[in-house]
Amino acid sequence: MPQPDNIRIVLASRPEGRPKPENFRLEHAAVPAPAEGEVLLAIRYLSLDPYMRGRMSAAKSYAASTEIGQVMEGGTVGEVLESRHPDFKAGDFALSFSGWQSHAVAKGAQLRKLDPKAAPLSTALGVLGMPGFTAYSGLLTIGQPKTGETVVVAAASGPVGSAVGQIARIKGARAVGIAGGPEKCAYVKEKFGFDAVVDHRDPDLAGKLAAACPDGIDVYFENVGGHVWDAVFPLLNTFARIPVCGLIAQYNATGDFPGPDRLPVLMRQVLSKSLTIRGFIQREFAEAQGPSFRSEMARWIAEGAVKYKEDVVEGLANAPEAFIGLLEGKNFGKLVVKL
Amino acid sequence: MPQPDNIRIVLASRPEGRPKPENFRLEHAAVPAPAEGEVLLAIRYLSLDPYMRGRMSAAKSYAASTEIGQVMEGGTVGEVLESRHPDFKAGDFALSFSGWQSHAVAKGAQLRKLDPKAAPLSTALGVLGMPGFTAYSGLLTIGQPKTGETVVVAAASGPVGSAVGQIARIKGARAVGIAGGPEKCAYVKEKFGFDAVVDHRDPDLAGKLAAACPDGIDVYFENVGGHVWDAVFPLLNTFARIPVCGLIAQYNATGDFPGPDRLPVLMRQVLSKSLTIRGFIQREFAEAQGPSFRSEMARWIAEGAVKYKEDVVEGLANAPEAFIGLLEGKNFGKLVVKL
Repeated sequence: MPQPDNIRIVLASRPEGRPKPENFRLEHAAVPAPAEGEVLLAIRYLSLDPYMRGRMSAAKSYAASTEIGQVMEGGTVGEVLESRHPDFKAGDFALSFSGWQSHAVAKGAQLRKLDPKAAPLSTALGVLGMPGFTAYSGLLTIGQPKTGETVVVAAASGPVGSAVGQIARIKGARAVGIAGGPEKCAYVKEKFGFDAVVDHRDPDLAGKLAAACPDGIDVYFENVGGHVWDAVFPLLNTFARIPVCGLIAQYNATGDFPGPDRLPVLMRQVLSKSLTIRGFIQREFAEAQGPSFRSEMARWIAEGAVKYKEDVVEGLANAPEAFIGLLEGKNFGKLVVKL
Repeated sequence: MPQPDNIRIVLASRPEGRPKPENFRLEHAAVPAPAEGEVLLAIRYLSLDPYMRGRMSAAKSYAASTEIGQVMEGGTVGEVLESRHPDFKAGDFALSFSGWQSHAVAKGAQLRKLDPKAAPLSTALGVLGMPGFTAYSGLLTIGQPKTGETVVVAAASGPVGSAVGQIARIKGARAVGIAGGPEKCAYVKEKFGFDAVVDHRDPDLAGKLAAACPDGIDVYFENVGGHVWDAVFPLLNTFARIPVCGLIAQYNATGDFPGPDRLPVLMRQVLSKSLTIRGFIQREFAEAQGPSFRSEMARWIAEGAVKYKEDVVEGLANAPEAFIGLLEGKNFGKLVVKL
């Protein structure tokens, strides 16, 4: 009996700067068979996230690079087709890290079962998944917003930024978002309920941000880097905290950055304002805070205190183009591929 | 009856870059009389510290600038000449913040009485005072060295650096010092007991530091800035902590710093290595940790676990020259002026 093909997208070559379609290659392969303790999954949703740009590079980072010819990595929601693990049966849904492909085997012990009645399956890749937990753990552990403080976050219409601002408001802080273009800005203010929003394409970004933050900035949740930093930096208050979880604006950068050198200026302010800058990857906090995150976030969503937006692309073949657009801010909400 | 003059050194003008003798002026004034609740002090020791460079500038920092014509600020040990406060009598010694002058009145409530039999009076300005507490609070609160970790500190023959390394060793960490010239380096290793020391004047500072830190750097206690940073930066381990308490190498800098821009490179490493960079001023921790510091440090000194070195300059008139030398690393040990 002919099995369906496993359709997968591999890293064809490493990008120089901005990724191009030719850095990806769509392949057909045999659908693998599960060994004892494993399950075979048909992937229903693939998450596309900025961190994937780092995996395409050979440069050392917090995780190993993807090798040329390997399947692109990524979080996924799969439906169990065949199970050789006692906790799963055909028809179950599970969160896995199966990458850019239509089918995958996975060890049952490494999967988290999902209840499709509790929440839409795709949210396990977004507001109830890695991006939501990045916002929750980084903001609460490092940012520690207090009542009346001002929290600023960029990419505020995205899955991390939108959660940061909404959680900040739950904690009694003032949320100021930065987003690209009038449509996203309106959404951030009206749907996500931020107190203020500033368009990063505004030629007077610095002035507009200063006006939106009359009491300065106590927490800047850094998930973009780039020119937003220069607008934020002068507004930081004494004892401000800066969780750093992403630098999408510089992921495509190559070679030296032109001067002047801003490092001595940064360090001077770190000293004179007693700033805290702390990089993090959400998995550092997963064991300690994962359970409280999932229960609190589910409750906040149910109560309407946290809203989310998804940007769904149909078909695995469209993943490369969607990912390239993500790095340029073309998505609007959490980008997922529906297979 | 003629009173002795109050001899004082005031800020004559703001330095551009490196301070010069003409930025200071020695004046004679009347010795002030204490009001109710105050005491009159004859200053016996004046502390000279790098932070004073910041007070000479008009630029906003964590403390207000000294005004032109005002007495230079500074920590002091005084002998009570006359007391109108019930806790003090003539002949007592007290820690005060009386600045660069021979006499001062101070509110008794703001003074800490010193026992000249418990420790040499000058140590209240050094290992048992602000520099020692800077090392203690920053290292233990932010640096948090663990057994077997590597702690690196520059200006390791100075009062902060020498205490950082010795406290790190008490906590079971490996202490690597950076100092200027063979004499200071030998002292750091032999007298302060650091595990290794590197000369920052070595043309291969980066290579020597890498060799001295085979397991990388877990804590870099930043109290100098400048070119030492470039040697330290590539060696930082994942989850490294960087308490920042001083940047003496750039205090005299003016204008923009030439490129390339190292800020994006820093932020990339903050992210990929989950680094913590935290500026601090010791007074942030004074209330919570001051008492434990004074008792622990006194015990460590008594046990010989912490040693200290002082560089004593005789006569207030020599304070400006000594201070200018301090900013160039000419002192060897905690710099104090004996009046």
